[in-house]
Amino acid sequence: MPPQRRIDLVLDSVKRLLRIGATANLGNLLQKQHPADLAQVFGDLAERDRVAAFSVLVERNSRLAMETVSELGAEGGAALLAGRSAEEIARLVQEMPPDDAAALIDNLPDELSAAVLELMGRKESGEVENLLEYAVQTAGRIMNPNVFALSEDMTVGEAITALQSSRDVEMVFYLYIVDARRHLVGVTSLRRLLLVSPETPLKRIMTLEPISARVEMDQEEVARLVASYNLLAIPVVEESNKLVGIITVDDVIDVIKDEATEDLYRLAGVSSDERVFTPAGESLRKRMPWLIVNLGTAFMAAAVVGIFRNTISSWVALAIFMPIVAGMGGNAATQTLTVIVRGIALGELTWGNSRKALVKELLVGIGNGLVIGTIAALVAWVMNGDPRLGIILALAMLVNLFVAGLAGTLIPLGLKALKIDPALASAVFITTFTDVAGFASFLGLATLFVRYFRPAG
Amino acid sequence: MPPQRRIDLVLDSVKRLLRIGATANLGNLLQKQHPADLAQVFGDLAERDRVAAFSVLVERNSRLAMETVSELGAEGGAALLAGRSAEEIARLVQEMPPDDAAALIDNLPDELSAAVLELMGRKESGEVENLLEYAVQTAGRIMNPNVFALSEDMTVGEAITALQSSRDVEMVFYLYIVDARRHLVGVTSLRRLLLVSPETPLKRIMTLEPISARVEMDQEEVARLVASYNLLAIPVVEESNKLVGIITVDDVIDVIKDEATEDLYRLAGVSSDERVFTPAGESLRKRMPWLIVNLGTAFMAAAVVGIFRNTISSWVALAIFMPIVAGMGGNAATQTLTVIVRGIALGELTWGNSRKALVKELLVGIGNGLVIGTIAALVAWVMNGDPRLGIILALAMLVNLFVAGLAGTLIPLGLKALKIDPALASAVFITTFTDVAGFASFLGLATLFVRYFRPAG
Repeated sequence: MPPQRRIDLVLDSVKRLLRIGATANLGNLLQKQHPADLAQVFGDLAERDRVAAFSVLVERNSRLAMETVSELGAEGGAALLAGRSAEEIARLVQEMPPDDAAALIDNLPDELSAAVLELMGRKESGEVENLLEYAVQTAGRIMNPNVFALSEDMTVGEAITALQSSRDVEMVFYLYIVDARRHLVGVTSLRRLLLVSPETPLKRIMTLEPISARVEMDQEEVARLVASYNLLAIPVVEESNKLVGIITVDDVIDVIKDEATEDLYRLAGVSSDERVFTPAGESLRKRMPWLIVNLGTAFMAAAVVGIFRNTISSWVALAIFMPIVAGMGGNAATQTLTVIVRGIALGELTWGNSRKALVKELLVGIGNGLVIGTIAALVAWVMNGDPRLGIILALAMLVNLFVAGLAGTLIPLGLKALKIDPALASAVFITTFTDVAGFASFLGLATLFVRYFRPAG
Repeated sequence: MPPQRRIDLVLDSVKRLLRIGATANLGNLLQKQHPADLAQVFGDLAERDRVAAFSVLVERNSRLAMETVSELGAEGGAALLAGRSAEEIARLVQEMPPDDAAALIDNLPDELSAAVLELMGRKESGEVENLLEYAVQTAGRIMNPNVFALSEDMTVGEAITALQSSRDVEMVFYLYIVDARRHLVGVTSLRRLLLVSPETPLKRIMTLEPISARVEMDQEEVARLVASYNLLAIPVVEESNKLVGIITVDDVIDVIKDEATEDLYRLAGVSSDERVFTPAGESLRKRMPWLIVNLGTAFMAAAVVGIFRNTISSWVALAIFMPIVAGMGGNAATQTLTVIVRGIALGELTWGNSRKALVKELLVGIGNGLVIGTIAALVAWVMNGDPRLGIILALAMLVNLFVAGLAGTLIPLGLKALKIDPALASAVFITTFTDVAGFASFLGLATLFVRYFRPAG
């Protein structure tokens, strides 16, 4: 059965069992599911049902319940737990890996999170507090400090024995090898252990200087390393090269998805932490500032139009074609902006080749301006019966699409130089440029025409 | 040294060695690099230098050269090879895994790719041709057919022996277990082999019914499975459950990145295969159709304005505030659209909860409309000295932001129902709705006012 159909069936059963209050049966059903499936089922339940089903699961199998919380992500997980007592949360989060526990506790209300850390066992809260000391979105914050490491003095046989007695560690496919002071010196793989005799010293089969991430490295950079070297995990080290954690590829996938969402959202003027089911009031508060900024820029465009009010009043047909100038410039600029921002994010666009990108975008702008301007001129001529209006429209379009290429390339590159996220050069800012340039050129040219010829309409 | 700085140093050395023609030194330098680093270095070289450096690398180490081609991706790799003879390409692609070879050959000019397939050894070209029979963007197309599998009748000791003699297979962390007709029956891990005695039958330590992908499954769905179950690889099966390939997590990361780029691009009206350095002529051809569609929709908005030309001619201040109505509606609609499209892509928005999303977006639209409309009204009043214009603007804004929420939610959901990619509901289509609704309400209300009161300006 396709996974999605199975999940839908489970969801229906959960709803039914909750309705008839069949707690024991519900526990049996939940108990048998994969945490990723449970996360999806919980996500689709109404809030009251979600809390009820989660309580049943916690009673039955608290480990599985907390794995589900991990899958729900820090925000969703914190929301699910926030109704419980600090004692209970402190007990439950100890079932989670420290990185997930840290992210979750960080998302609880301040008072509750302090109480939870207070109540946790000293070792566990120490681990979590250590993670919380690293800045958000760094390697240190997202790593799992329980990393399995072997001593460089071991033989392969000793390493296999150590492996057999290890439990509860993430990712034992790469075996990191450390010296006496726990400095990372090499890496080998489980498979290589199997290919040599047990007496072989580990040193002989290890690769030196494995690719690693420093604790303060930005998570986006970590993701780029893991993706470009096709790693399954990356060791995290402190300045002295001391091994302190590991980031596995599944966490990297989450980072890649989040960063892609962030770029997409910023380009559209949406906060990166908004989701489809963020409550309406919160979405309103988050989107409002962008719209207010946009209102300000729209008034700038309006002011430019205002300069030419006499021209418009003597030639009203101009007002009809204004939306075309603005719309085309905005769309062409968005195209350029999107390609440039994504090129920066994927690491394809660098300082060295940025002039090449600018030249290309200007050529595209001129080319599109000539073609689109000509088409628009012909249509406007037919619609309005006045060839002069068409000529003005074509010239304005050419200027506007050139400005679109220029602003769409230079603004994100400039923001990058200022170390600001280029995606913040959202459509909001770019379209101000094209609106202003478009209206100024369209109405300015029209004013010159009106001055030298009598307009037709 | 941070990886990026090392790569920059290598790049500088490569350029210098090419300039002075020190081929032997260049070969030594390239030889020592990781293919992912070489791909980045090659990407940053001018085309002539890239081809020259690649020739040196092919001579020195053709395996490494082709690993670099794999890292460059199918399109970039094909461009690098296209200047060579079919004989040479046929020989070189046999150094690549079949999935990468298939993607590369598919990107060569038609005649060349046919000649290459003709010239390849029967076994290799057979594998590649098999892959090319699956539709693009399916599991079958991106899988590696060289999958390591163990027979269900083996013992753990026999499995370890089989592993020791295997070579050149991808990902031996998951060990898939098949029956006599190669049907997938279970999975175990290398680590579990180490925890039991060699006489243990494999059957006793395998997990039944591992999560698998069908050959025809869309690659986006495959990526979702791998990501939500935190897998390192997924086995690919035919209808009968016969094991035919494997997709590893590094390929899944590429899919996730490509799909994110695709969504971002489609929302902006850019072809999903465009990159920063796509030649200007090609970019022009690819973006033009979107702009022409947008020109058509812009003329629709212009036609709506045309209906009210008499109102505008008697009250020119209206023309000044038109850009505000259009701009705000477009931006609010883009916000909604982006959240909805991303929610669909991440699997958070489903049929079951779409009404909830619509209600939320309408509430946000009304809320934003009231606040933004009020602010805009006050500013317009101050700017223009006429409170009536402010009131009309506020009412039009409310209508427009309501329409933005409605269209931004329903259009992508409708496209999804029609099995069209919701991201194609790009800003182009959505802004037509908001432009038409905005101009119609703004100018329509103004017409009613003009009929009952004398306007001021």
